[in-house]
Amino acid sequence: MLTSRHQVTVEWGHCDPAGIVYFPNYFSYFDNSTNALFLRALGFNKYEMLRKYDIIGIPLIDVGARFILPSVFGDLVTIESSVAKIGRSSFRMQHRLLKGDALAVEGHEIRVWAGRDPADPDKLKSRPIPAEVVARLSG
Amino acid sequence: MLTSRHQVTVEWGHCDPAGIVYFPNYFSYFDNSTNALFLRALGFNKYEMLRKYDIIGIPLIDVGARFILPSVFGDLVTIESSVAKIGRSSFRMQHRLLKGDALAVEGHEIRVWAGRDPADPDKLKSRPIPAEVVARLSG
Amino acid sequence: MLTSRHQVTVEWGHCDPAGIVYFPNYFSYFDNSTNALFLRALGFNKYEMLRKYDIIGIPLIDVGARFILPSVFGDLVTIESSVAKIGRSSFRMQHRLLKGDALAVEGHEIRVWAGRDPADPDKLKSRPIPAEVVARLSG
Amino acid sequence: MLTSRHQVTVEWGHCDPAGIVYFPNYFSYFDNSTNALFLRALGFNKYEMLRKYDIIGIPLIDVGARFILPSVFGDLVTIESSVAKIGRSSFRMQHRLLKGDALAVEGHEIRVWAGRDPADPDKLKSRPIPAEVVARLSG
Repeated sequence: MLTSRHQVTVEWGHCDPAGIVYFPNYFSYFDNSTNALFLRALGFNKYEMLRKYDIIGIPLIDVGARFILPSVFGDLVTIESSVAKIGRSSFRMQHRLLKGDALAVEGHEIRVWAGRDPADPDKLKSRPIPAEVVARLSG
Repeated sequence: MLTSRHQVTVEWGHCDPAGIVYFPNYFSYFDNSTNALFLRALGFNKYEMLRKYDIIGIPLIDVGARFILPSVFGDLVTIESSVAKIGRSSFRMQHRLLKGDALAVEGHEIRVWAGRDPADPDKLKSRPIPAEVVARLSG
Repeated sequence: MLTSRHQVTVEWGHCDPAGIVYFPNYFSYFDNSTNALFLRALGFNKYEMLRKYDIIGIPLIDVGARFILPSVFGDLVTIESSVAKIGRSSFRMQHRLLKGDALAVEGHEIRVWAGRDPADPDKLKSRPIPAEVVARLSG
Repeated sequence: MLTSRHQVTVEWGHCDPAGIVYFPNYFSYFDNSTNALFLRALGFNKYEMLRKYDIIGIPLIDVGARFILPSVFGDLVTIESSVAKIGRSSFRMQHRLLKGDALAVEGHEIRVWAGRDPADPDKLKSRPIPAEVVARLSG
């Protein structure tokens, strides 16, 4: 499956009075990484993706994380993200935040490929992930 | 002119490693307060406002703040916001953050009443603020 | 076990270009709620708690959430939080975000009662949760 | 005076329901840039700087920004920051956010070199900026 790695600098404003990354920000790091992986896999950004496939987005239905080591302002950490599983209309991203070689945070996201519900345009309805997207995400 | 006051609890995640409110969050407090004042003045929320007046939003063109006293996690502060000036297509909000009676932060926002540019729908174009909105904001 | 309920207004800046709450912000809502519950249970805030019990904090080791219904700017939602389980040096918070009576988000946090490691003051070490804290959190 | 330039990707979570950068985030971009410039100028990060010079921080006393062009998710923008003026115990940072060659946001920060007040350790007191720091910031 497709994997991407990139580096993130922990900024002052990402950290809390304990001096460590305020944990919701880890989910932003992971979300940014998922978006970057899609951009690289599909060759166009989220807006173009939404237009091209007539979807509303790839909203999350389940996320989780385990926090093993804290990170502080100035740390340069590595985010390693991969598509762990692709179902009919949902997929699972696996994320690891590394400090050097040490695993500091481990997380996952389950997202759905979602369009408007034809029966009620205010609602979302999952749709089959197009074969070409599956192929690209499979590396 | 219209004035509103409400209280905000400084949350853990609003603060930085120095233990004080990370300053960009003060602008969120002020933005929330402007939105609340509009809701109260017009009787409908931002989405309804955009639809009713066929505008894109009330984007900011200029903001500023002076920081006098820091605030820390757990502080219950007062945000006092008022419409300071209404022009043809822009208006000025004045904000004060108070700790007890002491002025801790003072800020302003200049916003425009903006619709789509008929000549280029990707661009914004300022529009005259409707008379009924001016009347409501004038208290 | 102790339960608390309070209301949160979904602010403009909490939402993303899809118009819905940017999911990491749900974890901030839950974190704020845990802090509020502790304040109510113990009668003093996080700083006083850290001083009194000579701990560094109650850092998270595991969090997760399921997203069932989206929320948008202007929604007034209810956060219902409870202490679900108290172990020797860790505890589990359970959170529910309700829109009216409908469950919109469900989440948990596992936190540890942590002090400095006497062997290495740069590290944290879990400590037994004091009996009086256990009693208060048990309602 | 010292100037730094670096690029920032506008992330999904930085943007609001209007699809544009939520304006307080511009101040985070600028703050990150000030921190990066100091790191480069002094050769050590904020924590080391605080320790070495026995200060509490370089808190802001005044900030402002003018918003000229919006930015959206996926934009790769340039932040150009420079030390515009150094006084005895305060200094002014000037920031420009560029989209290609176009100026999109212009901002400033006035910060003080602050230590603990010897008369009251809970308060801050401005201190003279050390000559070697002035020399480094002057490029």
